Amino acid sequence: MSETRAAMASKILNGIEKYEPQVKAFTSYDPVRIRQDADMASPGPLLGMSVGVKDIIDTVHYPTSHGSPIYAGYHAPSDAACVTQLKTAGAVCVGKTVTTEFAFFSPGPTVNPYDVARTPGGSSSGSAAAVAVGMVDIGLASQTAASLTRPASYCGIVGFKPSYGRYAAAGIKSLAPSFDTLGTMTRDVATAALADGVLKGPTAVPSTFKPQRPSTIGICRTPHWDAAEEATQKAIEKAGVLFSEEVQVTYIDLEDFAEAADLHITIMSYEAAQALGWEYADRRPLLSSQIVGLLEAGKQIDYATYRAALARAEELRCLMADIFANYDVLVAPAAPGEAPLAESGTGSPLFSRLWTLLRLPTVTLPGLTSSSGLPVGVQLLSAYGTDEDLLNWAGWAETILPPRPFPSMCI
Amino acid sequence: MSETRAAMASKILNGIEKYEPQVKAFTSYDPVRIRQDADMASPGPLLGMSVGVKDIIDTVHYPTSHGSPIYAGYHAPSDAACVTQLKTAGAVCVGKTVTTEFAFFSPGPTVNPYDVARTPGGSSSGSAAAVAVGMVDIGLASQTAASLTRPASYCGIVGFKPSYGRYAAAGIKSLAPSFDTLGTMTRDVATAALADGVLKGPTAVPSTFKPQRPSTIGICRTPHWDAAEEATQKAIEKAGVLFSEEVQVTYIDLEDFAEAADLHITIMSYEAAQALGWEYADRRPLLSSQIVGLLEAGKQIDYATYRAALARAEELRCLMADIFANYDVLVAPAAPGEAPLAESGTGSPLFSRLWTLLRLPTVTLPGLTSSSGLPVGVQLLSAYGTDEDLLNWAGWAETILPPRPFPSMCI
Repeated sequence: MSETRAAMASKILNGIEKYEPQVKAFTSYDPVRIRQDADMASPGPLLGMSVGVKDIIDTVHYPTSHGSPIYAGYHAPSDAACVTQLKTAGAVCVGKTVTTEFAFFSPGPTVNPYDVARTPGGSSSGSAAAVAVGMVDIGLASQTAASLTRPASYCGIVGFKPSYGRYAAAGIKSLAPSFDTLGTMTRDVATAALADGVLKGPTAVPSTFKPQRPSTIGICRTPHWDAAEEATQKAIEKAGVLFSEEVQVTYIDLEDFAEAADLHITIMSYEAAQALGWEYADRRPLLSSQIVGLLEAGKQIDYATYRAALARAEELRCLMADIFANYDVLVAPAAPGEAPLAESGTGSPLFSRLWTLLRLPTVTLPGLTSSSGLPVGVQLLSAYGTDEDLLNWAGWAETILPPRPFPSMCI
Repeated sequence: MSETRAAMASKILNGIEKYEPQVKAFTSYDPVRIRQDADMASPGPLLGMSVGVKDIIDTVHYPTSHGSPIYAGYHAPSDAACVTQLKTAGAVCVGKTVTTEFAFFSPGPTVNPYDVARTPGGSSSGSAAAVAVGMVDIGLASQTAASLTRPASYCGIVGFKPSYGRYAAAGIKSLAPSFDTLGTMTRDVATAALADGVLKGPTAVPSTFKPQRPSTIGICRTPHWDAAEEATQKAIEKAGVLFSEEVQVTYIDLEDFAEAADLHITIMSYEAAQALGWEYADRRPLLSSQIVGLLEAGKQIDYATYRAALARAEELRCLMADIFANYDVLVAPAAPGEAPLAESGTGSPLFSRLWTLLRLPTVTLPGLTSSSGLPVGVQLLSAYGTDEDLLNWAGWAETILPPRPFPSMCI
């Protein structure tokens, strides 16, 4: 075993031994397989890197439970496209990470590494927590409403949700196909860019990452600014002040987009009621009340209403494209505030529904904190399809924001 | 067991007994289960109807092999969304129907019911042949290039490929997600419309089908008219003559769209290389040379080329939307000619790549024949999202064209 490969296996296993009993980020992992996979890792651009795979993503060697007892112990017949891409590029798949039930709201056992009484956020809970404490370098995550941005914000890490459709979805359990987007969680933007070179196509390409200052930034408080708690309001103000030292900054609210959250809920409900139709028809007693509520709401929506919502969403995408004529980057709240206490759920998705509906690329950045020292992320957005630019701009912004605070359990 | 349910089971089993030994349309079916399912069928709008499920679509009770030895005997953990929708609406799932390998080119054992030496077409081979001889009322089919239109044309049945995204894709093996479209094969347009009311949403709605004469028809010979064999050239001319007796007909070629076929191939190859990444990386010796060729071609395409093709496809969709300001319906070739001999493959997809790229709804209609009496379909198209109108117009066109000829083995 080469030095890199041996070091990789040791680093992974030490991290798991140290943090997993408390964090509970994994649904499954296997030390024997981790050593084997590290030993056999391909000599690609991700050699030396470890990956945690959200448990709605198919893997041959670990069960894929979708966070549901219906799929307990289910073994997929093949790896999802993204898993093959990462492994072929040299990464080691450490195991499967906890998701909420079908990437919706009903939470799993993972805790927030900054405060074990708090939620890590959903639905990409396990990947976020595993990255935050360093158990993996790359966490595969997904977003249909706010499932990547929110846990990235709560766990003080970088979350990259690319433009809709940039990464292949084959082998990922669908919730609402108009929105389902695979993305990554990492501890820095450079790693997200490295993974992007691997995940965006069938053949890995070297990262072109080069941090770069944007020309213009819009601070977008969104139509839901009233729902932002003090911690988030201060974080956005702080980011505005820091960025304005180097770049022209404007404040906007996008009141015209207030309807986006409702459109998002309509489309998501309708599509989820189809995507999880079998589970509802044949396994209803094993579904949570949250999922049953979502699916039954979807069944009440008629096709004309659904089509009208899709058409209006497309109009809003065109409106937003015009706005990006004036801004390289928008900066917006990533979540209403710091991570809530676990008993109150996984947090509100309100501040991401708009961006998910618009299919824009987003990077959530850590560094800012609430008065109690908990992470409060901010998200950067850019025009559809400008993912590489956004990563470069986020690389610059990362150097402007304070360094991310370490989780208490890592100190 | 009610009379309807008992009659349904008998009809299904008699059909299978009579035709399946020769047609070889199914990869699996189970008489005991068929009787059970008929007995328990839901009292919905499809009660009394039988369905054959293309074997790239997940089913709990039958293996899902994707036409590949890699998945021989694989049992999916859940039914695909479309299967649940049909069953909930009262239909009985008869079994799984033969597909080419991963819905690409490498053929299965099914024969053409009009001439057993000829191909039924790919990739929805089994569904097409099963519908043609009456073994099922509804064949679930899919199209990424020409996989629904071509076998419908070769087997003398109605093929409905809805607007891209109209039917849920959850639980269907993906080949190229930008194009993969679930559709139906039936013996008449009314049945396609009935199934449409069930497949377009999580809750079945009654069919609104009402045959209606369109105001304007464009006979679209497409930029590939030179590739149309005599049988297809005559079929299109005949359709033009028949339709012009009742509706204003214009002839167009759409030379501006000649690039569409190459764009389609670029996008399909790139996406297939991702979607089937695991099969290529881990099971290559079990793949056909056709699939390996597709995937290796996809791996040679860089991301910028792929994105440019996607952007150009979007431009062509807008151009085509303008054209539909002048036509309710376009009529175009469904395939180059009658079904080729089986040893030469499943036929050319050339005449459908354009429409698949444009994501338009299409209905393939039977009735016309070659000089040797074999079916030669024509396809009707309308603007994106006008699926219900198209079904109504196709219902009218169905009455104008000659009745479909019966397969020789049914006489």
